[in-house]
Amino acid sequence: MQRYFVAAEQFGNSDIRIIGEDAHHAVRVMRTKPGDKFIVSDGQSRTALVAVREATPMLIRAEILEMLSADTEPSWAITIAQSLPKGDKMELVIQKGTEIGAYAFMPFQSERMIVQYDGKKEAKRIERWTKIAKEAAEQAHRNRIPSIEPVHSWRELIQSFGSYDLVLFCFEREGHAAHGRGIRSAVREWIERSDSASEPSVLLIVGSEGGFTDREANEAEAAGAVMVGLGRRILRTETAGIVGLTCLLYESGEMGGA
Amino acid sequence: MQRYFVAAEQFGNSDIRIIGEDAHHAVRVMRTKPGDKFIVSDGQSRTALVAVREATPMLIRAEILEMLSADTEPSWAITIAQSLPKGDKMELVIQKGTEIGAYAFMPFQSERMIVQYDGKKEAKRIERWTKIAKEAAEQAHRNRIPSIEPVHSWRELIQSFGSYDLVLFCFEREGHAAHGRGIRSAVREWIERSDSASEPSVLLIVGSEGGFTDREANEAEAAGAVMVGLGRRILRTETAGIVGLTCLLYESGEMGGA
Repeated sequence: MQRYFVAAEQFGNSDIRIIGEDAHHAVRVMRTKPGDKFIVSDGQSRTALVAVREATPMLIRAEILEMLSADTEPSWAITIAQSLPKGDKMELVIQKGTEIGAYAFMPFQSERMIVQYDGKKEAKRIERWTKIAKEAAEQAHRNRIPSIEPVHSWRELIQSFGSYDLVLFCFEREGHAAHGRGIRSAVREWIERSDSASEPSVLLIVGSEGGFTDREANEAEAAGAVMVGLGRRILRTETAGIVGLTCLLYESGEMGGA
Repeated sequence: MQRYFVAAEQFGNSDIRIIGEDAHHAVRVMRTKPGDKFIVSDGQSRTALVAVREATPMLIRAEILEMLSADTEPSWAITIAQSLPKGDKMELVIQKGTEIGAYAFMPFQSERMIVQYDGKKEAKRIERWTKIAKEAAEQAHRNRIPSIEPVHSWRELIQSFGSYDLVLFCFEREGHAAHGRGIRSAVREWIERSDSASEPSVLLIVGSEGGFTDREANEAEAAGAVMVGLGRRILRTETAGIVGLTCLLYESGEMGGA
């Protein structure tokens, strides 16, 4: 069943409204008409099954038939911090990461970043990334749209560590067989040590094509990050976040099992 | 360090030869010259550190300095069986699956497949997919290039089940909260039940955009496949294999931990 996100103010007590580009898409492309049913979420907590009463390219008004409680959000809030990669790789990270279940994305700058960072283009890019997250969240039937944080400097990234229960730093040292310690042992040790009963918030830090310098790794470690590896193969920058996120969700119990 | 694959017959006792397109690429694009060092693998068992002695766009001859034993291959041999998806999504599955550590890829046909299958174009596509697997294996520093099997019919897919220790069928039933049983519980139960001490070969079956019909799911289950889900969100067809593969490697111990 088709799923849409609307702003909280368009989500009423008995009906919901879809406006703007979404209404245009629903009527012109998806051929939505009165009587059609779909699922609407406010991107935060409310999700409902609705039936369309009125459908124009400018406005769709639909009646709430049933509030749904089905929660499709993971219990661990995992933020992927990705050093800005080349081309449209950030889009792949956001699309796939949203499907799999990331909580948020934090682009950041690092020393060996290959792209030229352009602050002027930032607003436009954040806008585009937010749109990709929204579409992927709809497609994946999520209740929540992951947030896209502004591009952080290296300093701001380090300063953000305090906001997370666990900070993991994906680091591969050329020529080292072990590529640091496996993410599984690091996370399990943390779980055993941690006395918090609540679900953790995790920051998963991934380098760009050029990787990290030793200085950056040392700084991150000194600030509390745990160095981890993602297996014995070298992953492309846009693959590492997807793989790390999947590992964390697997460990958290999202894929079943006790 | 740059890594190349050569055919077994180009891998001698004291030197190796790189010919054809690889030699051209190495000399013209990578500017390889005498004295340069890189790593060469025969794609099966032998890997060596070599030093270039002669470099032309037609032939590179390099001396073996040291045989390397570093094995970057996962202990579980996981084949991703992917119902043919639209556009170039199969390429993404092969590229990312190779990086992460898939053993082989088996494209197959199913009822709700959206693409028009064209047997005449098959040889060309298999050739392109094989090239993508080779490049991704080089980039990921793997010792082995995953094999690309010919496009299987549904019948051939079912008949292949006997060649694997474990067959997992990713299946999502619309509207079901649990989307089948989580892959983690299914795999752990299989490990407990299994009395084999050796590392398993696993077939991971993923549907195309349209998913599977109930008839297909029932047939696969009757033939011995275990139905599994990959979390509470709906994954795109090209994401499911990548996520399932990562989960299996995580469980196998590839990401550290006991």
